[in-house]
Amino acid sequence: MSSGKILVAQGGGPTAVINQSLAGLVLEARRFRDVSRVYGALHGVRGIINEDLVDLTRETSHNLELVAATPSSALGSTRDKPDLPYCEEIFKVLRAHEIEQFYYIGGNDSSDTVRIVSEQAQQAGYPLRCIHIPKTIDNDLVGSDHTPGFPSAARFVAQAFAGANLDNASLPGVYVGVVMGRHAGFLTAAAALGKKFPDDGPHLIYLPERVFSLEQFLADVKATYARYGRCVIAVSEGIHDASGEPIASLLAKEVERDAHGNVQLSGTGALADLLCDEIKAKLGIKRVRGDTFGYLQRSFIGCVSDVDQREAREVGEKAVQFAMWGGRDGSVAIKRTGFYSVDYELMALSDVAGKTRVMEDEFISASGTDVTDAFRLYLRPLLGSGMPDAFRLRPSPVEKILKK
Amino acid sequence: MSSGKILVAQGGGPTAVINQSLAGLVLEARRFRDVSRVYGALHGVRGIINEDLVDLTRETSHNLELVAATPSSALGSTRDKPDLPYCEEIFKVLRAHEIEQFYYIGGNDSSDTVRIVSEQAQQAGYPLRCIHIPKTIDNDLVGSDHTPGFPSAARFVAQAFAGANLDNASLPGVYVGVVMGRHAGFLTAAAALGKKFPDDGPHLIYLPERVFSLEQFLADVKATYARYGRCVIAVSEGIHDASGEPIASLLAKEVERDAHGNVQLSGTGALADLLCDEIKAKLGIKRVRGDTFGYLQRSFIGCVSDVDQREAREVGEKAVQFAMWGGRDGSVAIKRTGFYSVDYELMALSDVAGKTRVMEDEFISASGTDVTDAFRLYLRPLLGSGMPDAFRLRPSPVEKILKK
Repeated sequence: MSSGKILVAQGGGPTAVINQSLAGLVLEARRFRDVSRVYGALHGVRGIINEDLVDLTRETSHNLELVAATPSSALGSTRDKPDLPYCEEIFKVLRAHEIEQFYYIGGNDSSDTVRIVSEQAQQAGYPLRCIHIPKTIDNDLVGSDHTPGFPSAARFVAQAFAGANLDNASLPGVYVGVVMGRHAGFLTAAAALGKKFPDDGPHLIYLPERVFSLEQFLADVKATYARYGRCVIAVSEGIHDASGEPIASLLAKEVERDAHGNVQLSGTGALADLLCDEIKAKLGIKRVRGDTFGYLQRSFIGCVSDVDQREAREVGEKAVQFAMWGGRDGSVAIKRTGFYSVDYELMALSDVAGKTRVMEDEFISASGTDVTDAFRLYLRPLLGSGMPDAFRLRPSPVEKILKK
Repeated sequence: MSSGKILVAQGGGPTAVINQSLAGLVLEARRFRDVSRVYGALHGVRGIINEDLVDLTRETSHNLELVAATPSSALGSTRDKPDLPYCEEIFKVLRAHEIEQFYYIGGNDSSDTVRIVSEQAQQAGYPLRCIHIPKTIDNDLVGSDHTPGFPSAARFVAQAFAGANLDNASLPGVYVGVVMGRHAGFLTAAAALGKKFPDDGPHLIYLPERVFSLEQFLADVKATYARYGRCVIAVSEGIHDASGEPIASLLAKEVERDAHGNVQLSGTGALADLLCDEIKAKLGIKRVRGDTFGYLQRSFIGCVSDVDQREAREVGEKAVQFAMWGGRDGSVAIKRTGFYSVDYELMALSDVAGKTRVMEDEFISASGTDVTDAFRLYLRPLLGSGMPDAFRLRPSPVEKILKK
């Protein structure tokens, strides 16, 4: 080991704090005398095979701090999932540039990429330290208490539902908000944290961890509407029927799939519209509105959890420390140690890659359409400080004169 | 005049600051010795005819301040547009409760309601002071520099597009964001304030002030995509063809209309999905995503302009002062007096009601798909302090070794 060159890339969907991890890594790495250069690959692993590398060592610390506070992947991202030939291309570039450490900031798919690259490097006898730095708004990495990016997205969802509930109380009807989350319902469940008063929405929450039945859904909405005169509903884009078929894809004319074989769920309002149409048609409720939160929830600038920011910063820093002093490849994981405190561990890549965490049963109410207090206790500290709060008039009714 | 009772109601779509006007009115009114009671009607004019009144004089000042900072109409709202028989019902209730001043916080439709009630009162010889307090995210009231509620919604839209642009730069493709605004494009145009670097999106902005041509739209997108390798587009929900037919209603299976005869444009992702489908099919671009901002943009809790807050507060206060000392009915209007300062005037109801302001030509670029610097100068001070800012890496490319 002598080049002192390390390489970092960002993969998968952007988050509000993924650049905190990048800045944490670069600034921490530059403190090590063994590090001569910190390279960044543009647009993830694709940037490696295209040799689109930039020298982050030449960036100012000041601008790195400003970029850290900017959402979305500053280096660019990719949805590419390297297979063996792809990895061979990666190695050629890494060898040519004498890269000794490879850091990939990403989610499930990215951790699997790191695992493959790590295995390829070992098989090729190439001395490469590979570290996966976690990031995903889906919160679906096995072994982590939670993943950087999720808390800020959860904060957006909670604030969005707090506002949607107020809007719906003002002009009553049915409101359906569709939230990201293919397999894991954590982000959708965050809607529950927008609730304050007992009759506040969301009144119903539909998660991909439970089988979705349109009949039961309509019965739930009908009962809620009868009780409150309105109904606010949080729905995961990943809800599916008993056979596992996404409700969203049942009506899509043309199903778009990415390189990982995933059906496109975001970037279309189809699911919300279908559910609204069903409610109008079957329940005869006139004012039914659906919003699909889409990309707003993961890249909205100006809605970020300060807890998320500092943890994302730390996983970047810790990644470098693990690489320098740990002597093995791995994936950085956040472990909760108190209420509320965390520490970081380096997990084996094989324990993280290709696995998907879903919401634990203890987080989902028996009805299947709400969260438990255990979930509220789990999520609340992650949302950070300065959460906006909603207040109501406590009106004194004026005695009626005409309509006694 | 001896009862000292005044009545306030909120109508139309909620905003982030409409309760500032309510609190400003109640707190200011209670400073007048002539005022004995401040009543609120629940759910607008409907609450009046149903005699659903509450005594706001019994609310604490402290809670009024907390409610002021809470988005959406605290008294509830309505879409009802009173006709003559409806107004007769209003008078019966007002007479029975000896109401001497009627304040209605709302937009275009609400100002027309105030006008009708005012005229009815005069015709009936009933001594009623009627004041319209402006509120609309559409910014479409004639005579006002801008309307309370618009700046906060504009801030949400600007922040949303700043984030969407970062997301799109990270994972390039075409992004379509559909923004509220039936006839006036102000809110859609606010997307331009999310732009910082010269190649940032939104690259194209489609406003209801210009005729929308699908062919021209596709040509614009194609050219932008060829130039930047990506394209971020802001589209008003109110875009229409040369005959005035909304593009959104051209594909809606079942067109829903409200009491004012307006087609439902919000609460459905249909327009964004249609435009995305066209881009995919006609331009062969694979990654095309559409978001409909829907209700998020008007009721998101935690995204508010402090300038909007204080002006919304002041129009509520000024309304009371105009009523007490002005001697005539009217609509409170914000007038810009400097860069940036404002003052308030009481306009004649007939000069405001039933009229719709649209974006002035000087605010729209010659291309029709961008705003002018005059618009940026107009809007920027309204967005308030603490606008989040986006920063980029200024990378130094690493010399290629393999791919020379």
